[in-house]
Amino acid sequence: MNGPSLARRQRSLGDPSAEYPLFPPLTRGCPRTSTAEIAYPLDVDYDYDQVDPGLFAQEPGTDIARWSPLLPPLEAPTLGEGGTPLVAFDGVYVKDESRNPTWSHKDRLNRVTVSAALASGAPGVVVASSGNHGASAAAYAARAGLPAIVLTSAASPPAVQAFARAYGAKVVSVPIEARWPLLREVVDRLGYHPVSNQTVTHTGHPFGPEGYKTIAYELFRQLGRPPAAVFAPTGYAELLYGVWKGFTELRRLGVAETVPRMFSCETAAGGPHARALATGVPAAIVELGRSDAYGIAGPVGGHRGVLAVRDSGGEAVLLTDEELRAAQRDLARQGMWQELSGAAGVAGYRRLGRDFDGPVVCIATSSGFKDVGVGSGSFPALPEPTLDDLLA
Amino acid sequence: MNGPSLARRQRSLGDPSAEYPLFPPLTRGCPRTSTAEIAYPLDVDYDYDQVDPGLFAQEPGTDIARWSPLLPPLEAPTLGEGGTPLVAFDGVYVKDESRNPTWSHKDRLNRVTVSAALASGAPGVVVASSGNHGASAAAYAARAGLPAIVLTSAASPPAVQAFARAYGAKVVSVPIEARWPLLREVVDRLGYHPVSNQTVTHTGHPFGPEGYKTIAYELFRQLGRPPAAVFAPTGYAELLYGVWKGFTELRRLGVAETVPRMFSCETAAGGPHARALATGVPAAIVELGRSDAYGIAGPVGGHRGVLAVRDSGGEAVLLTDEELRAAQRDLARQGMWQELSGAAGVAGYRRLGRDFDGPVVCIATSSGFKDVGVGSGSFPALPEPTLDDLLA
Repeated sequence: MNGPSLARRQRSLGDPSAEYPLFPPLTRGCPRTSTAEIAYPLDVDYDYDQVDPGLFAQEPGTDIARWSPLLPPLEAPTLGEGGTPLVAFDGVYVKDESRNPTWSHKDRLNRVTVSAALASGAPGVVVASSGNHGASAAAYAARAGLPAIVLTSAASPPAVQAFARAYGAKVVSVPIEARWPLLREVVDRLGYHPVSNQTVTHTGHPFGPEGYKTIAYELFRQLGRPPAAVFAPTGYAELLYGVWKGFTELRRLGVAETVPRMFSCETAAGGPHARALATGVPAAIVELGRSDAYGIAGPVGGHRGVLAVRDSGGEAVLLTDEELRAAQRDLARQGMWQELSGAAGVAGYRRLGRDFDGPVVCIATSSGFKDVGVGSGSFPALPEPTLDDLLA
Repeated sequence: MNGPSLARRQRSLGDPSAEYPLFPPLTRGCPRTSTAEIAYPLDVDYDYDQVDPGLFAQEPGTDIARWSPLLPPLEAPTLGEGGTPLVAFDGVYVKDESRNPTWSHKDRLNRVTVSAALASGAPGVVVASSGNHGASAAAYAARAGLPAIVLTSAASPPAVQAFARAYGAKVVSVPIEARWPLLREVVDRLGYHPVSNQTVTHTGHPFGPEGYKTIAYELFRQLGRPPAAVFAPTGYAELLYGVWKGFTELRRLGVAETVPRMFSCETAAGGPHARALATGVPAAIVELGRSDAYGIAGPVGGHRGVLAVRDSGGEAVLLTDEELRAAQRDLARQGMWQELSGAAGVAGYRRLGRDFDGPVVCIATSSGFKDVGVGSGSFPALPEPTLDDLLA
């Protein structure tokens, strides 16, 4: 839409001097810097001096190709991702990512990663996910004409199972411990392009966070400036890192003078980024307790989230399910029904209870339809309803 | 956003010489022209000669207030409705209305009707709906700080029951025959503002279709011209009429030269507009057979749909559930998971099988999460999955 991609190479987040060609995407992390305990993701580097600053004079809209110079090549067709609204809520702004093609932020990532699969000539894509990521990957693969395999879990809510299966992918519920070996086998033996993680600490697809950068570009346009703080629901921290990277690019290009503080909003049942930040390690793995926020609850963290929080002067915030539920309820009471995980940004802002010198954005990632328990209720009709029943 | 509302009066669709003040909205149809058999809706008239044609130079975006001069006063706050993408699909364009705040087109209507409730000083809103309309009304009422009563049915899918209940409204499942008397009682005794129909043939809220006009404005901008044909999922035909009215306004204002043909895409289990058009009556009531397309399956039609089809040179198209399912499946196979009713536009275009001299738009109204059966499946994990299971 706005010219070809200026993406030029992959660069290790473990050691910025370790560079690799843009293709193939190193989906198993940086081979030079990763160890048996810590895997380092790759980042995408661009010819920034060729970026036309007029790029950021554009209005946001429903196709991230408007930011094509600062994205990897977008070979996959759009489903109209992006262009989501910023809705005022209790003194902050909610970026409502439930307004994407499969009703979560993941569509921004999958436009980019399925594009990488096409550009790599892969015969299909494979993803391990029990939620939004799997369905979104299936949708973008279907749109691109690529077969997809989704390794999901029987614990995924029934409505989400229907969702993941709708797009024609091969969706198979497997035991949780079987997912990663099976994913690797699909990659190694079928040559499918992996759009989820394969490493000991999280690295994921090197191009994934690039899609999330477009949230930063949109926020800059919607607010007329960078926010002072961004609170993001955080599982693997690809979203958090992507938004952070987008703002650092705006500063680097001279488009904006400031960058926001980034807050990693994690479930208290796990919280690997909080742990890594507290203990000063590049990435951490934690024991995972019980949480219904399955979209962000995982034991494995990655280095990206640590960088985003640390370099921005932010913090990690740990949230109980009760705090998440309160934020979810209050968002719905103002017309925004979010998945429990999706309410973590608002919950994190409230939990921190701090004032900021500028606008605060809480990213809300996903529709309430994807929550645990949705679709399991029973609501029999009142046999002879009266006005009193409506006022009870 | 773009100046005050130029809405000036209500005018009867039964007799254009019958005019009424803009407030109160005549939610029980035109008192002068309606009979015991046929109720005539009111339409909203504007001071069209005061419209700045520059209004239509705007990009679409997520807040219909950008079209405020051609809408009734928007007292209710936005949830970011509108600005939905137009996605290419098999030679036509799909307008994906699942990308609204409650993931259906209804949000455009409810921004306007909840505004009318506020402007009328009503203490609350009441709606009878087993699907999108009720949840959307609940969301906009919540956003506006108004209590809402939703009279729903036990036949509404469990996930949709959770959806309608999320926004804090009083949601009560009642027998289908109890809905209308109860709605009327809530209006008469509590003074609540009704945002669904109360008349023998459908009239609904006089301001409702005004919200849908914004789809026409957006399509004009997205295509750079009016489409040659629009296929819309049709229950009460408020969507069909609203889109039609928007295009007639663009012609009247000299912004566009042509208007599209409008196609009413109804379920073959009912099809009151098809019946009215075939028999030459202003509106019809039919026997309703069995259909899973509960979002559009109803026995009661209205005069608006008849006008839109007749005046545009369109047609009514009747669709079986099998035809709807085929369209739903094929949309999902290209990344768009629609509710069964939401696929009726694409199904109608296919069923008609006609060529048009210009772009064709099929409106897709709602997310697949709202469908009958979603959330009721069971997907146990394969105990020892192998690569062969993934290739089966």
